[in-house]
Parts: sequence; C-alpha cells; structure tokens
Amino acid sequence: MQRIQSVGVIGGGAWGTALALTAARAGRKAILWARDANTVSDIRARQQNPRYLHGITFDEEIEATTVLTDLVSVDAVLLVTPAQTTRPMLQELSRLGAFKMPLLLCAKGFERQTGKLLSQIVSEELPGTPAGVLSGPSFAEDVAKGLPTAVTIAIDSQELGHALCLALAAPAFRPYASTDVVGTQIGGALKNVLAIACGAVAGRKLGASAQAALTARGFAELTRLGVAMDAKPETLTGLSGLGDLVLTCSSTQSRNFSFGKKLGEGHKAADLLLQSDKLAEGAFSARVALDIGRRHKVDLPICETVSRMIDGDLDVDEALTALMSRPLKPEASS
Amino acid sequence: MQRIQSVGVIGGGAWGTALALTAARAGRKAILWARDANTVSDIRARQQNPRYLHGITFDEEIEATTVLTDLVSVDAVLLVTPAQTTRPMLQELSRLGAFKMPLLLCAKGFERQTGKLLSQIVSEELPGTPAGVLSGPSFAEDVAKGLPTAVTIAIDSQELGHALCLALAAPAFRPYASTDVVGTQIGGALKNVLAIACGAVAGRKLGASAQAALTARGFAELTRLGVAMDAKPETLTGLSGLGDLVLTCSSTQSRNFSFGKKLGEGHKAADLLLQSDKLAEGAFSARVALDIGRRHKVDLPICETVSRMIDGDLDVDEALTALMSRPLKPEASS
Repeated sequence: MQRIQSVGVIGGGAWGTALALTAARAGRKAILWARDANTVSDIRARQQNPRYLHGITFDEEIEATTVLTDLVSVDAVLLVTPAQTTRPMLQELSRLGAFKMPLLLCAKGFERQTGKLLSQIVSEELPGTPAGVLSGPSFAEDVAKGLPTAVTIAIDSQELGHALCLALAAPAFRPYASTDVVGTQIGGALKNVLAIACGAVAGRKLGASAQAALTARGFAELTRLGVAMDAKPETLTGLSGLGDLVLTCSSTQSRNFSFGKKLGEGHKAADLLLQSDKLAEGAFSARVALDIGRRHKVDLPICETVSRMIDGDLDVDEALTALMSRPLKPEASS
Repeated sequence: MQRIQSVGVIGGGAWGTALALTAARAGRKAILWARDANTVSDIRARQQNPRYLHGITFDEEIEATTVLTDLVSVDAVLLVTPAQTTRPMLQELSRLGAFKMPLLLCAKGFERQTGKLLSQIVSEELPGTPAGVLSGPSFAEDVAKGLPTAVTIAIDSQELGHALCLALAAPAFRPYASTDVVGTQIGGALKNVLAIACGAVAGRKLGASAQAALTARGFAELTRLGVAMDAKPETLTGLSGLGDLVLTCSSTQSRNFSFGKKLGEGHKAADLLLQSDKLAEGAFSARVALDIGRRHKVDLPICETVSRMIDGDLDVDEALTALMSRPLKPEASS
C-alpha cells in the first residue's frame, strides 16, 4: 500500500495549523505554507501561531514556509484555505505545475458564485489530481490542544483513503475512511446556515427544547438535499453530517451560531456583516443553498427563512415564528 | 372526527403539570391528578406547583384532584408518572374499571424488570384501551413557560392521532402526528444512557468536538436498535429520536447528562447513586438496553461502556478511551 510520509498543508489559519500539528503527531514530516510571513516566522521561531491559536505551543515540530514550491515533494497536500479561495488557490497550484500528489480539501462550503462543491472545482482546475475531502465535527482549538476528535476522510480510491487516514491518525485524532466524496461535503456546506437559525432561537431565549427541535428539523433538511445529490444516508448520519451539525448548532464557539444569536438578540444582519471582521459563512451561503435546493427540487424552509432574515425581508420575530410554528401535519412529511 | 374537549393528566410532577397547562392553553378543560395532597392544594389555591415548577404561576386555570375517579369522564388521559410506575398505575386504573378513553403515555424508558416498552404494558394491563405515546425534545420548564416546543404523538389510529394533536396544540406547543408507536419510544428509552456518555466526555473536559462525535455515534446506535425493532427511519431522525437525543446530550438541565458529567469529573457511580435524590434513569437502563440489544442481535458499544462504568468494571478513563478511540475502519460499518 501507498505510504504517506510527508504532508504539506496550504493555509496558516487555525485549522491549517491544527492539521499540520496533527500530521506531525502522527509521525509525518509536516510542512505548512502560509501567505503571511509573520505566521511563518512565529511558527519557525516559537512553534506557535498566536494570531489564530492563541496561547498554544506546539508539542511537535512543524516546518513553515511562504514559498509554495517548498511543498512540491510532499506525499500529500491538505488544502486548508477558506472555501471561497479554493479556486484561485488551485489555479495557483496548477500554474506551478508540480502538484500531482493526492489533495485533501479541508474547507467547507459551496462556491458562492457557482454553487459548486469544492471537489467539483478540483476536477475543473487540477484535473487528474486525486482529490478528497476531510470533514467532521472539529474545532481547530480542540484539535490543536490534542483533545479527542473524529473526522471523515472521503476519496474515490479506498486504498488511498486508507493511506490518508493512516497518515493523520494519532491517539486523539481519528479519521474514518469513506468513498462518498459528495455526501461528505453536504453537512459542512449546509450546517452554517442551520447554525444561524439555531443561534437566533438561542439569542431570543426560546429555550433548549426549541433549539433541539430545530436541530432535528435542520438535519431533515440536510438529509433531503443530500439524498437528492446522491449522498449515502450513512454519510449524512455520520461525523461530517449529523456530527458537524450538532457541533455547529450548539456551540457559541461557532461563528455562525454566534451570528445567529446576535440576530436573535435584535441586531440587524446588515449591521453585523459590516461590523464583523470574522466571516459568518452561513450568512452568504443561505441563498446559495436555496438555489441548489431549487435546482434539485428540494424544499429547504430553514435555509429560506435564514436567507430572508439576512436580506432584511423578515424581521427576527417573523422568522422565528416561521421556524417554530408549522401546520400539524404528520411528522414523516415535514 | 372525534373531538377531545377535556383532558385528564395523571401525575403531578413537572412534566404532568406542564402538559395539563398545555391542554388548558389549547382550550381544553384540564384536570390533573396527583397523589400528593400538597401539590393539589398548591395548584388549587395558587395556580402553582412550587415543588416541581418553582417560580411559575400558571397563565391558565387547571383543576387538580387526589381522587383518580374524578378523571373518569374526560375525553383523553395523559399518563405522566415515572416510567417504572407505569404498570402499577395502569393496574390501578384497570381496577377502577372506568378508564376506556384514549391514553397517551408521556414517560420515557423501558420497564426495567422486563425490558418492555411502555406501550406493551398497556396492552397487558388495560387491553382494548387505545393507547399512544407523546415524546420529543421538551423540558417541562420550557413548556410551562410557554417557550416553543414540538413533540410527536404516535398512536395506531390516524384519526385519533389527529384529534389528540388538535387537543393539545397551542401556538407554542406543536404536536406532530405519527402512527409509529414503537419507533417513537426508542429515542426516549435510549437517550438517557447516551447522555451519560456525553456527560462524561464533558466532565472530563474533552471538548465540544468529542461530544459532537459521540452524539453522532450515539445516534447511529439508537438507529441500529430502532431499525431492528421495526421503527421507521423518519421517526428516528425526527423529534422523538434525534431531537430528544440532541437535547439530552447537550444540556446540563438534563439529569442524565449531569450524572455523566460527575462521572467524568471523577466521582464514583455508586456514590452518586447513593447521594442523589433525583433519579438518573440512564444509570439503571444501560444494562436493560444491552439486554434488549442482545435480544435483537444489535451491538450497542456506548450502552455497554456506560453499563460497565456504572457497575464499576471500567474506570472513567478506560471508559472514555473505549468511547473515543476505535479502529480506523470505514465509517459506514461503525
């Protein structure tokens, strides 16, 4: 079987750094590329990334560079830049010509302008590169601290999937192999929108029961879209689907949940989007999700409500009424 | 269609009181039976149940009585006494002879001594009575305060189910009808065991990512057992399954989660069971769930770990290692 001895990580944010650290803990040579020279010098000099992982000193050594071609000889690359930068990053790799090794996409979301999944972008920009995705319930800080985390790695080739899992597996970091590349991306792409809805319920202090009911309904929505896109049911109930949804819909550590919480407290979406320096991805992807739903003839009422709330078409009370009160029809048809 | 104008509630705890209040809000005549005379006099004199719903004054009037036969002329009865008292309560109703009206079981859990679902007990003790279940993510306090809550009402007859939903529906309380009586009980019966596991992860401070992964795995376990018992998949992903699991596995308001949290903090199960005046049902039902799993040839590794932790066979660190680290096999087979 293919052996992966060295792992390149593209992206010096919290998640990229945590994954590089994970590769090092798993016994791999790990080299991280960041565009920001300060990030690279902090990692080199202090084995820290204070801007993104404040107060954490790495327990294993990772190399860092600002030069992409320093990664050309690694056995596998993790692409960990924000979802919306996936296409330009892949174009950059394509221009360099030397990136033929397996690639794992570690960002989550649809491409906003096209509504495409990130894996579709790889086949357009780096055709022939074996590409998969890494997704699951995982806060970068938990992973960096060495707290137990489980994720799904999905790629067409079972053998390569197994090799990638082995390359990153450490006692506290458990990757599970899958071949359902599309299905593994659905949860990550929709959960941010659903988390905004759950956050709004929390911000309006509607109680834990309401939040749990909405999470279950959000999962039904995610499942409907997933099934229409040929995801496997067990992927949707697994780590990258249900697991990530539960994490994002229940924790103020999640940016999207916090954004929704502020909406629930009465802030206007437009004001929040102007003020915030940190991106609430779901605020942008709500409308994208709706378009995709329409294309697949799937009704996504929660995404629709969130989208209208963000556009200012619905105030938060109308939105919460829409989310919470529905006709008394049988559950199976909801 | 059958019209339900009056609702009797048996059980003066927090959940019984909240449901009586819900019936009154829905415009029904609501009469609550409690064994405890103080509860009845508090409700009559002050429209409060301070022992169980501290600080809440009812916004609608409910009647209260200590005399079971005061309920014989109601159109439907909700049985809201603890799960393990279901059989003796039904025997008491059977002796009185006059309880032929539809009955909704509102407690959750297996009968410990027999491993039976509560609906099975009704057909043994009150044969011929049309019986269903009410279940879903619902903290009594949320419901009593009028916060939005959604539950499933499952009963064989679709018409009766619809009538029962209408009888209890109010703007903030949304019942959804189902005919999957067995499936609707699975979530409520297993979630307490799974909540202990999630609580232990939280108590040991293993992070939100670990807790979310375990919740997803808990749902897989619940689904396996449910499917083996002929539950419908949409019931398991609905309010009574996933919805209730999410609520119980994420909130310290849940007794079982709190019990697990204390285990995670290093307390011994035996000590906790001696000290506590409030029952952590999951501590008792872990072993029952395992027996049922064996009978249906379903592997329930989380229930098994919780059961061994409670019996003192595994210390908490061994248990958490068992819960968190599993072989790198494909996700679908986990």
